[in-house]
Formats: sequence, C-alpha cells, structure tokens
Amino acid sequence: MVAQQHSVRSYDEELKFLVARIGAMGGHAERMVERAISALVTSDTALAQRIILDDKLLDDAQREIDEKAVVIIARRQPLAHDLREIIGAIRISSDLERVGDLGKNIAKRVVAVSEGLQPPRLFRGLEALSDLALTQLKEVLDIFASRSVDRISSLRDRDDNIDQMYTSLFRELLTYMMEDPRNIAPCTHLLFCAKNIERIGDHATNIAETIFYTATGRLLPAERAKDDRSHHIMMAPMLRKAGE
Amino acid sequence: MVAQQHSVRSYDEELKFLVARIGAMGGHAERMVERAISALVTSDTALAQRIILDDKLLDDAQREIDEKAVVIIARRQPLAHDLREIIGAIRISSDLERVGDLGKNIAKRVVAVSEGLQPPRLFRGLEALSDLALTQLKEVLDIFASRSVDRISSLRDRDDNIDQMYTSLFRELLTYMMEDPRNIAPCTHLLFCAKNIERIGDHATNIAETIFYTATGRLLPAERAKDDRSHHIMMAPMLRKAGE
Repeated sequence: MVAQQHSVRSYDEELKFLVARIGAMGGHAERMVERAISALVTSDTALAQRIILDDKLLDDAQREIDEKAVVIIARRQPLAHDLREIIGAIRISSDLERVGDLGKNIAKRVVAVSEGLQPPRLFRGLEALSDLALTQLKEVLDIFASRSVDRISSLRDRDDNIDQMYTSLFRELLTYMMEDPRNIAPCTHLLFCAKNIERIGDHATNIAETIFYTATGRLLPAERAKDDRSHHIMMAPMLRKAGE
Repeated sequence: MVAQQHSVRSYDEELKFLVARIGAMGGHAERMVERAISALVTSDTALAQRIILDDKLLDDAQREIDEKAVVIIARRQPLAHDLREIIGAIRISSDLERVGDLGKNIAKRVVAVSEGLQPPRLFRGLEALSDLALTQLKEVLDIFASRSVDRISSLRDRDDNIDQMYTSLFRELLTYMMEDPRNIAPCTHLLFCAKNIERIGDHATNIAETIFYTATGRLLPAERAKDDRSHHIMMAPMLRKAGE
C-alpha cells in the first residue's frame, strides 16, 4: 500500500515536472517575442543577436519534454486522461517551440528593417498587434496552469481581433510601399514580421484546443471561421481612384 | 503461443495502418501543393476554391492518426522503438497537415495574384522552387515507406538549394515591385507563396529528422546552418547605384 502510494506520487511528480517545463517554455517564448518586437522598433541589433542565440533554449526544452513524455508513457503506461495529458504536453511544447522560432525570425529582420526610416505609426501598428498576440499567449499559458477550460471560448473569439488588425496593418504597409520604392524592401520585412505575430496568435489558439481536448476528450468545433482576409488584398481599385 | 502470435500480428496491423494513413496523407498533401501552384500560375480560381475545401481531409486525417496513436499506446503499451515509431507518426502527421495548410494558403492568394499581369519569369521561378520542394516531399515520404535512413543526409543538404532559390526569388520580386507600384500588391502575395513553398521544404526536412530519430533513437546534429539569407535583403545599395 505504501509502495503503491509512493509509485502514484512519483507519477504525479513526473506529470508536474512536464507541466512546469511547459510553463517555463511558455515564459521563455513570451520573453523572446517581447524582446524581438522591442529590438525591431528600436533597431537594436545587439538585442536581436542575443534573441537569435536564445532560441536554442526552446529547441532543447522541446526535445527534453518529448523524451520525458516518451519515458513516462513507456514506464507508467498511462491510460485515458493521463495519456491525453502527456500527448498534449508533446503538442504544446511543439507549438511553443514554433513561437520561439517566430520570435527569432522577427529578430533576424531587425537589420533589414532598420535600413529604411519607418514612420512611427507602422511600428505602433506592429506593437499593438504583438500586444494582442502576447496577451493571448499569456492567457493560454495561464489557462494551462490553472486548467480553466471555461476561458477557452473567449480566447478563440479574441483571435479574430488579431486577424482583423493584421489585415489592416497589411493594407497600411502596402500603401506605404506604393508611396516610395525605397520603402518596399524594409516594409516587406515588416510584413513578414506582422505575419509571424499573427501566427503566434494562431499557436495560442492551437494550444487552447489541445488543452480542451486533454481535459474533455472532445474537440472544439473544427471550423473556426478565420477573419484574416489579407490574402484577398488588392490595391488596383485604390490606385485607379488616386487618378493613376 | 498461437494467441501471442495473433496478438503480435494485430499490433503489426495497427502499425501498418498508421504507416498507410501517413502515406495517404503525404500523397494528398503533395497533390494539394501541386494543384495550388498550378492554380496560381494559370489564375484558375475554381481550382483554387476546390483546394481550399480539400484541406479538411488532411485535418481529419491528422486527428484520426493522433487518436489511433493514443489508442495503440494505451492498448498495446509499446516500448522503445515501437513507442518512438508511434510518437513519430504523431509528429509526421502534424508536419503533413501543415504542408496541406501551406498549399491552402497559396490557393487563397490566387485571386489577388491574378490581379496584376505577372511576367512569366516570376511564375517560372515559383514553379522551379515548388518543383524542388515537392521533390523533397516525395523523397521523404519514400524514405518513410522504405525506411531508407541512409538517404536522409542528402535530403537535408538539398534543403540548401531551396533556401538559396527562395532568396533569389525574393530579390527578384522586390526588384519587380520597385519598377511599378501596381506590381506591389500582387507580388507581395507571390512573396508569401514563395515563403510557403520554402516552409514546405522545411517540413520535409523535419519529417526526415523524425524518421531518423524513430529508427536510431538519436538526433541528427541540431544546428542546420540555414542558407536562407532573405531576412537580410536590403535594396538601398541597389537604388543608390541606379542613380536614385
């Protein structure tokens, strides 16, 4: 009996370890993205360089979680909810590793963006977008830690805000690019940065869906109508209006 | 003894099922990408629409594989190599689902790209890039089916070709955008399409790494020096040279 309880405690401890590592990965991914945006808007190439090197931490953490998960499955042979929890940890660590990659990719573009003189409003747009995405990320990590499945629905709804904001930032960047050919190259990089931020929002939503599945064994409704209309954006009507 | 053998055969059958589903997913993902590129260069919006709807098949297949994998783990309690194989299936199906998403995203941009009149050479560049990426995808699915781990090293090396080609296509598109503001919006979408194709190449490489880990229990060297220098591209020197 004592031996059995000891064994159960060990399994709980292993699970707690996974949860803690994911929390740590999440915090690290958040910081990478925050710092990448900061480096971008202040043209801080030294900071950008440190972020790029930092990404290795997340790659290592993801591998560690994957391997730990496999060991737990092999050793403990968990069933049902516990097994979903461990598979969920594998998926979430994969999403967080990609968030770190997206932060790294933003950092890589700092030099190219600093080439041009970007009007503050473009950077403000990017910062507003990243504030939204980071709020989503913090929220989903909190939902994960507290297992508050009831908060998932609002989180998914808020992803629409990110998509809408991304779409208008996309349009704004295209307009600026059309004003002066010297804006084109740096703004293209900003466009990719904006896309990366929108994808960070998507990863937060993916993580929420994994949490929901882990907790309930059910999927959220498969079809999330995306509000990202950026792939439709055409400017010809605008150019004709401008008397081209 | 007979019962034991029967049980072993059932496990083999379940594993074969997973392998077959992944092969089917891979074939479907390939076709989606091929058709998306075709729709793009021929401005075939009807085809694009069908591709967008088709993506659901891959989402469903991924979920099916995930759930089947969890059931197998719970029921069979596999160890070591077999467990790695099943976790590997989960990861590979996730990579293939994303490849389908990338094909869908290319299809979504067909209308916006068809707005402008794109010179054939830009489409040729995109087709060449996608030929490379699709070759990688076919190769890695073949490696998966035949377990030919020895072919993985050359596959990773060929990823450099994709990155280099992507970088020059990026530069070519920027140049075209600077020639005429009416090119900017459609070329921005082409740029995102090119980026999506480059990422398809990355997913092929990810799958190769998973196959290697499954087969050997070891990781390939973590640091792949990426040849994608596109995040550095700046055009100001070129503009100054042009007597701007």
